[in-house]
Amino acid sequence: MKKQTDHTPWCRDHKGTVYTFEEYFDFMKDFHGYPAPGLIIGGRMVDIALERFPKGTLFDAISETSYCLPDAIQMLTLCTTGNAWLNVVDLGRFALTLYDKHDGTGIRVFLDPGKMKPWQEIMNWFYKLKPKPEQDNQLLREQIKAAGSDIFSVREVQVAPRYLEKRSKGKTTDCPQCGEAFPSNHGTICRGCQGDAPYS
Amino acid sequence: MKKQTDHTPWCRDHKGTVYTFEEYFDFMKDFHGYPAPGLIIGGRMVDIALERFPKGTLFDAISETSYCLPDAIQMLTLCTTGNAWLNVVDLGRFALTLYDKHDGTGIRVFLDPGKMKPWQEIMNWFYKLKPKPEQDNQLLREQIKAAGSDIFSVREVQVAPRYLEKRSKGKTTDCPQCGEAFPSNHGTICRGCQGDAPYS
Repeated sequence: MKKQTDHTPWCRDHKGTVYTFEEYFDFMKDFHGYPAPGLIIGGRMVDIALERFPKGTLFDAISETSYCLPDAIQMLTLCTTGNAWLNVVDLGRFALTLYDKHDGTGIRVFLDPGKMKPWQEIMNWFYKLKPKPEQDNQLLREQIKAAGSDIFSVREVQVAPRYLEKRSKGKTTDCPQCGEAFPSNHGTICRGCQGDAPYS
Repeated sequence: MKKQTDHTPWCRDHKGTVYTFEEYFDFMKDFHGYPAPGLIIGGRMVDIALERFPKGTLFDAISETSYCLPDAIQMLTLCTTGNAWLNVVDLGRFALTLYDKHDGTGIRVFLDPGKMKPWQEIMNWFYKLKPKPEQDNQLLREQIKAAGSDIFSVREVQVAPRYLEKRSKGKTTDCPQCGEAFPSNHGTICRGCQGDAPYS
């Protein structure tokens, strides 16, 4: 990719810190390991949502895909997997929503197939119209940058009440089998000892 | 909490950057929103796993709880929700594993109930022996710092083969109902239109 020398903002975080395309690349490598196209696009999507969201509102987030987009949200807002302000709802749609955690009103930003058509390399990547080795990664990044906000649509949404509830762990007790602590509402022994442990 | 002036390392990241207790507090506030006790502890747990893991190995991570620990992993390694190198397996156990993504050999670090007993305020918090308003947050932080690595146990594990497979999205197509793109293996219409959308 050509060295970016312009100072045009690409995205911002919840505190208002602005990232140029180039600065955001460094941030992506540091957090996600590499500047994935979906994450580049995701940065702009979070920016659009933040821009429309009333300042000072406490918000939670939904990512409708488990690919890339959750990381754009985690990098640019305080909504994370570990604090559960980020909800990944695996619908496989490239869309995110920031919503008021009290009343559920939100802004949904989504990649709009109708608007992507003029950008052939974005189409090649997103719909896998060409095998990955034949895709032109530099052109893809240039098209993502040039397209900017033009490939998204935005709408206001009302998030369902179950996403407004605070999660509760209940009582914690020690498992009589492995001896480790677990939420007692999981059963008499922990889920690991019930056969769900990821080890062989 | 008393101002920390010592330079004792509390944790490090995958690149070897070292954080003191105080520096890690700033990092937690910036990523997670607040310095949650489970996240303070989690930093040390990641540190223990990284220390025992052979340098240069490509690793993935498992968190056995959805609370806090996934964020310690995301903050200190390149394993994230969005790149799927982090797997949250909701067993409700306060344990994490870093594992070789090729052969599945790993290091599991877990909070060990037997070793926590000398630390009354950690017990009060973890088992909710006192209602939250009666817990002493400053004492809790002091005990977490003083306990250091003493409250964990470590063992070598073999991660099950299903955690070594690369995820695959398959073909992407447009939903005839909403018009948005989705993985065609989800059905003839997207999951959002099948009734799984988080909106009302």
